[in-house]
This record gives sequence, structure tokens and C-alpha cells, in this order.
Amino acid sequence: MEVLIFGAAGMVGRKLVERLVQEGHLGGREITKAILHDVVEPQAPQGAPFTITTHASDFSAPGDAEKLVASRPDVIFHLAAIVSGEAEADFDKGDRINLDGTRRLFDAIRLIGDGYQPRVVFTSSIAVFGAPFPEAIGDEFFLTPLTSYGTQKAIGELLLADYTRRGFFDGIGIRLPTICVRPGKPNKAASGFFSGIIREPLNGQEAVLPVPEDVRHTHASPRSAVNFLMHAATLDGGKLGARRNLTMPGVSVTVAEQIDSLRRIAGEGVAARIRLEPDPTIMSIVEGWPRRFDAQRARSLGFQAENSFDEIIRIHIDEELGGKFVE
Amino acid sequence: MEVLIFGAAGMVGRKLVERLVQEGHLGGREITKAILHDVVEPQAPQGAPFTITTHASDFSAPGDAEKLVASRPDVIFHLAAIVSGEAEADFDKGDRINLDGTRRLFDAIRLIGDGYQPRVVFTSSIAVFGAPFPEAIGDEFFLTPLTSYGTQKAIGELLLADYTRRGFFDGIGIRLPTICVRPGKPNKAASGFFSGIIREPLNGQEAVLPVPEDVRHTHASPRSAVNFLMHAATLDGGKLGARRNLTMPGVSVTVAEQIDSLRRIAGEGVAARIRLEPDPTIMSIVEGWPRRFDAQRARSLGFQAENSFDEIIRIHIDEELGGKFVE
Repeated sequence: MEVLIFGAAGMVGRKLVERLVQEGHLGGREITKAILHDVVEPQAPQGAPFTITTHASDFSAPGDAEKLVASRPDVIFHLAAIVSGEAEADFDKGDRINLDGTRRLFDAIRLIGDGYQPRVVFTSSIAVFGAPFPEAIGDEFFLTPLTSYGTQKAIGELLLADYTRRGFFDGIGIRLPTICVRPGKPNKAASGFFSGIIREPLNGQEAVLPVPEDVRHTHASPRSAVNFLMHAATLDGGKLGARRNLTMPGVSVTVAEQIDSLRRIAGEGVAARIRLEPDPTIMSIVEGWPRRFDAQRARSLGFQAENSFDEIIRIHIDEELGGKFVE
Repeated sequence: MEVLIFGAAGMVGRKLVERLVQEGHLGGREITKAILHDVVEPQAPQGAPFTITTHASDFSAPGDAEKLVASRPDVIFHLAAIVSGEAEADFDKGDRINLDGTRRLFDAIRLIGDGYQPRVVFTSSIAVFGAPFPEAIGDEFFLTPLTSYGTQKAIGELLLADYTRRGFFDGIGIRLPTICVRPGKPNKAASGFFSGIIREPLNGQEAVLPVPEDVRHTHASPRSAVNFLMHAATLDGGKLGARRNLTMPGVSVTVAEQIDSLRRIAGEGVAARIRLEPDPTIMSIVEGWPRRFDAQRARSLGFQAENSFDEIIRIHIDEELGGKFVE
């Protein structure tokens, strides 16, 4: 089977490619080819048991998506996006990539016609929700994005459901919670501190906590994100009916609980590297974010996340730090 | 003030224009000009106390919407749409008018910039909802359209909310229930019988009822539809917050209750002109339609519909039949 990945150079995309290379199969079928796409050239891992081609282009440009789907891949992962902050700062760019790009990709598949009906896995986001929220957001709560990014993702979800209903392809949309612990350098995302307060202390560095410890949020590890994608790629679509977009499960914890986990796993000295420095701007952004989900549908369809934040930290130490941290 | 109406040649559009001509004011401000647009030339009523210009064109064509908004109208009513059945039969046409057209119109307004921020009233539809439903659909129930038309309307709602949040314009979206009694000839819409079983008997003609009498549905008169539009045009947007799309109120009745009303108002002889002739296709379409709404937000913001189906019938007899019917 052939797999096509948009956004293959991103953090989750790279981990997905690694997993596909490791397993060599998807849903019991042998992978024969993977096409990796991003706006910058994705890296092809060594030693893959299948052919890998890499492509760098703007998939929102007319005709671009058509070329990429022309070989009729069996599974298409659509992970490409202009992220929240950038789509807010540059409306036209977010609109062009997140909305036009997604639509052009979906239409490129539709226009092949001829019975071609690949599984399309679309990564949406909890940014499709906007305050005020109920205590836990249920599977039938309406989409009320408060960012252009969230709006563009919600539109992608609606198109995915309609294109699936009409038989243009077989789509599943997954709303990822905040992915934690993100490896790499600190970034400027408002949500960056959720990873930073774990990652930096484990590296022997100080981390700044810009919000009070009672802030609650939902997390899943990068490993869970890849698990969600793999499961969505192979799940029997008939089980979903017309509602093709799912809130993924995660671990809902307060920042205090995150820090307790860190203390349990790495000790008081590591946890002491977190310094509270309230940032009113970040606090007001975080106010508008969902805290907890009741992701019943996804769980009942077999999507699984971690059961505790301890597990999320252990995965980070295991995958990114070779099992060791700076005490 | 200047008013621009897209879809001015449609049933609701014509009634809206008549009302504006009658009143000469909108929200206490004098109307100085009305621009009427549709794909066919709209008719300008005689004796209007303001200038009327009429335009026929395809507003989804690049550059078309720009010309229509260039005079910076204060209020823009967007009623233009390819209806449900046609958008389902001709995907490309529905996509082009309902999605691209709406987006091009919204962008034409956005690109004027320069502080221009008109009130935009967008007619959405209860087709944004799809079965299975709760007993009454609340204001926070999610949008799960089961038609391409409903999908395109839901996308319009999302864009309207985001463009308003960003200050590109000041939008309000209103989800109309089924408008009943529709004047004129029977049409082929699956929902046509809801009007037909009232309109035809009052005209001395037989009407066919294709569904069982226990089917429940929500209705509002054409007069209410115009009231909704007028209220939406002048409502203080600050009262809505970020959630700019509202389910309009209506009268939720079973078909049996519709027929009881007809019998009460026009007599047994008129009601006896309804003949039950079950149509499995129409029955299965109607199965997927919402039955009842809890339109609390709209009511609390001052939107009002009829209180009974009797009232809906009386409005039809009054407005369309000059107060008389065939006994």
C-alpha cells in the first residue's frame, strides 16, 4: 500500500514516518511506498523497508495537490497547517494554507473519481472549541472557535464529513489535545510552557511558569499522537457513521499535578527549577482554552492516550533523553 | 443609510424589499438607497421613498461582489443560495455559489478595510443540523449537516463569526426554520408538503400528504422571516459576544396539529382536501430533519415568531389571499 503524508517535516509528521518505517505495515497491509511532503524538504529515514520520495512545495498552489495524489495513495495523512499564532497574525497566509490548501487537497482527491476512495486522516485541533465551556466538553458540543486557525480547522472538519458522506473519499478527522512533552527548543507558542516546565528542568535548565498552578489542561504524548494517526488510518469507517470528526482522549491535569508528577519521577531538585513568573497576556489566552474533554466516542472506537501525567513524563525521558535526566 | 440585498428576487427577499419600502427606515435611520441583487433581475417595487437600483449577475464570479459593495452600504443582507436539493444534485454549483460566493462577498467587504464595518445579515438554515438529534436542539448543539447545502451554510456561519471577531464586519447569522405557508405554486422540495397541505386546500385544490400525521417540524411564517431579518439588521451586536449565529424561534407542531389548525380556521370541508399518500423517499428524507429547537438565545435577544400554527395560517390568508379562501 502507498501512503502520502502532508506535513511530514513537522514534529508529529517525523514521528509518524519513523513509526511507519519501524513497522513496515499499516493495518496488516505491507507499505510499499511513502510520499513525504512539506513546505521544506522532509528527511527520509535510513533503512526503510519501502520506497520513500520527498517533496517540498506549496500544496495550496493550484495543481500542486493534484500531482501529489496522482499515484492514488491508499492512505493520505493531512497534518499540514499554519499554526494558531501565525494564522492569527497573518490572516491571508492561514486562509490560503489551512482553508484553500485543505480544500484543494480534498478536491484533488474528489476529481480523480473513478472509484478512488482513499482513507484521509485529517488532524484537527481542540482550537475548534471556544469559551465559555461546560465543565467537560462532550462529543456533541458545538464548534465555536475563537481563532482563525480554529475556524479553518472547523471548516476542514465540515468538508471532510461532507466529502466522506458523498463518497469522494473515506475521511476521519482527529482533534489532537496539546501534545506534551514536545521535544526540542522552547518555542513562542502560548501553550509552550506546558512542555517547557517538564522539558527544561529535566535538562538541568530553569523553566518559567507564566500561569497559576490551578490552570487545567488536557495533554497527550507525541507517542499517543502517532497512535491516534495509525489507528485513524486503519479504523473501520463504517463504525463512525456520518460524524467523522473525533475529539481524541488525553490526560486532564492542573499545572500543580504536572509538577507533582515531575517531583515524583525526577525529584524535588528537578521540580525546583520551575519559577513562577505570571504573564497576564498568556494567562488571558489560556483562559479561553478548553480544560477537559469527555472523549467518549473516540475511546469507544479504540483511541487510547496515557492514563496519567507520570506516564507522559516517562515517555519523554524514554524517547527523547535515552532514559536519563539531569538530577 | 444604504442597504444591499443579495437574493432580492427570492420569496423572502421580495417580502423584505416590500417591507423596507413600506417602512422607509431601518433601526430608526432613514433608508436613502437600496441595491437589489440576484442572479435574475429583481423587481423594484413602485413608490419607494428611496432610490432603488437592481443588478443581475453571478456574485460568485471574481470581482463581482467587489463592485456591489464598493459604495459601502451600511447593511448587507446575504440571502442568496443554491437550495438544498440543487446543491445536492450539482455539487460544483452549490460549492461555487454557497461557499465561494459567500467567501468572496465576505472578502470583498474585508478588503475595503479603512474602518468600513457594515452589519452583515446572513441567512443560514436548520440544515446545519443532522440526525440523530436530542428531543429539542439546544443553542450549544453541534453542527452536523447531512447535505452539502447544510455544510456550506455551516461554513458560512464559521466564516461570519471569525470575520466579525476580527473586525472585518459586524455579522449576524440567522438559522431560519421551515418557512410556512410559502405562497405560489407547489414546488418539488421535499419540505414542500408542509406548505402545500395548507395552501392548496385553501385554494379549493386537493393536497397530497406524503408522510404520517405524527411527523413533527418547526415553522415560521414569511412575515416572521422578514421580522427576523429586520431585527438582525438593527440588533446591538455587542449583546451577542463571539457567538454570532442564532437558531430562530418557530412553532413546533405535528402534521396532525397543522391539519387541526386548518380545520379550526377553514372548516372540515377544506381540511378534507388533504389526501394521505405515503411516499417512502420523502419519509426517509424527513426522518433526518430536526423536529424542535430550544431557541432560547434568539428569544432572549428579542427574535419572535408566531405562537401557534393557527396564527401562521391566518397570516397566509391575510397576506396572500386577501382574507378569503375557498370553503
